[in-house]
Amino acid sequence: MLTMILAESELEVMPRELVNHPAIISFARERRKKPEFILLDSNYHHRAMTELSEGRRRGRPDIVHLFLLTALESIVNKQGQLRIIIHTRHDEVIYVNPETRIMRNYDRFVGLIEQLFDKKIVRSEEQILLELKQKVPLNKIVDELGVEKAIAFLEEGNAVKLNNYFKDLKKHKKKDIVCIIGGFPSGKFNCAIESIADDIVSIYPEMLVAWTVASEILVNYENTFFVKI
Amino acid sequence: MLTMILAESELEVMPRELVNHPAIISFARERRKKPEFILLDSNYHHRAMTELSEGRRRGRPDIVHLFLLTALESIVNKQGQLRIIIHTRHDEVIYVNPETRIMRNYDRFVGLIEQLFDKKIVRSEEQILLELKQKVPLNKIVDELGVEKAIAFLEEGNAVKLNNYFKDLKKHKKKDIVCIIGGFPSGKFNCAIESIADDIVSIYPEMLVAWTVASEILVNYENTFFVKI
Repeated sequence: MLTMILAESELEVMPRELVNHPAIISFARERRKKPEFILLDSNYHHRAMTELSEGRRRGRPDIVHLFLLTALESIVNKQGQLRIIIHTRHDEVIYVNPETRIMRNYDRFVGLIEQLFDKKIVRSEEQILLELKQKVPLNKIVDELGVEKAIAFLEEGNAVKLNNYFKDLKKHKKKDIVCIIGGFPSGKFNCAIESIADDIVSIYPEMLVAWTVASEILVNYENTFFVKI
Repeated sequence: MLTMILAESELEVMPRELVNHPAIISFARERRKKPEFILLDSNYHHRAMTELSEGRRRGRPDIVHLFLLTALESIVNKQGQLRIIIHTRHDEVIYVNPETRIMRNYDRFVGLIEQLFDKKIVRSEEQILLELKQKVPLNKIVDELGVEKAIAFLEEGNAVKLNNYFKDLKKHKKKDIVCIIGGFPSGKFNCAIESIADDIVSIYPEMLVAWTVASEILVNYENTFFVKI
């Protein structure tokens, strides 16, 4: 089983500092929602966000959207071998049912996540699709998974060729792994990632977007651990 | 060099049959554009499109968007080893400069493509980013590339493990290849793909989205043909 965690992703409802900002009030009115139920989005709230601490890093539901579209449509997921977890900057955690069909339209996706932050759960007729829990830091998520190996992906990590790295894990019979990918646009983890991950690896000497890292993990995991498709 | 063609992609401006449709006129008015300059989009024009021939297949700029975000952000592209071509249902062809930074926001992407269909060219200050040419059928695009091997990806093709298939090409010293991926949501190619491609391969027994196929090609090409990163 492969678990992928998009960690410290920049997904949050409107922070208290901005709910009374004129631009946000007017945006919320247009959307016919209360400001505090609106998802922070640098694409739409860019100007107001200059007043926010770490404002250049925050408000990136687009990264989560593209990560989920990559992960859910992958062969590893279709084979039932993938667990997907979204962790946020405020230590919320979202468990994603592998059978979820995420909408490709971005605005509808944002609507879905706003509903999730409000109700803490999104279900279909038969099952829970998304579930949000609060106050679960990254180290606790990883601990609770109880996997054989936790690997964080970071530009500054130890350079590896991922296919060889996975082959090596296979040799040591470690198949049940968690891969931790940063869900923020650039910079470093805020948490002490070196005390959470067993290995910190780099698959390319420059910055890669989260969905490229996810693709590399998914295809190489499939190549290494699936004997037959 | 790897070339990826998204073939018969469902990218077109509003077809003549729909420019006078009341829903389209009202949509165009909201966007402050003339209907004939609007990109057909099943996400917004779903109802009007029921009156269109092949209406359930058409109007899918979202597939092109996700394909481009996957291809342009890949390691193969960052290494300067990727050529990206979009071919459309009406035999237009769009040459994509590898240095193009495609906007992640879908509506802005649609605006960019509308501009491209209007002006036939999108440039930055220094260079051409996107260029559209008309009346170039898929066989002509492939012929003009003059590559060593043209491979089409199709659910019904010959089942292969892509890493082994590429290794075999490498053994025969074929590195300069073109991979053809369908840019339509489901169904078959309209053209005679078997007379255009040297091989027709299947990497999974069920339908995959275009950006999953692209990921598989990109990561396996990188693993096979890049000795050093």
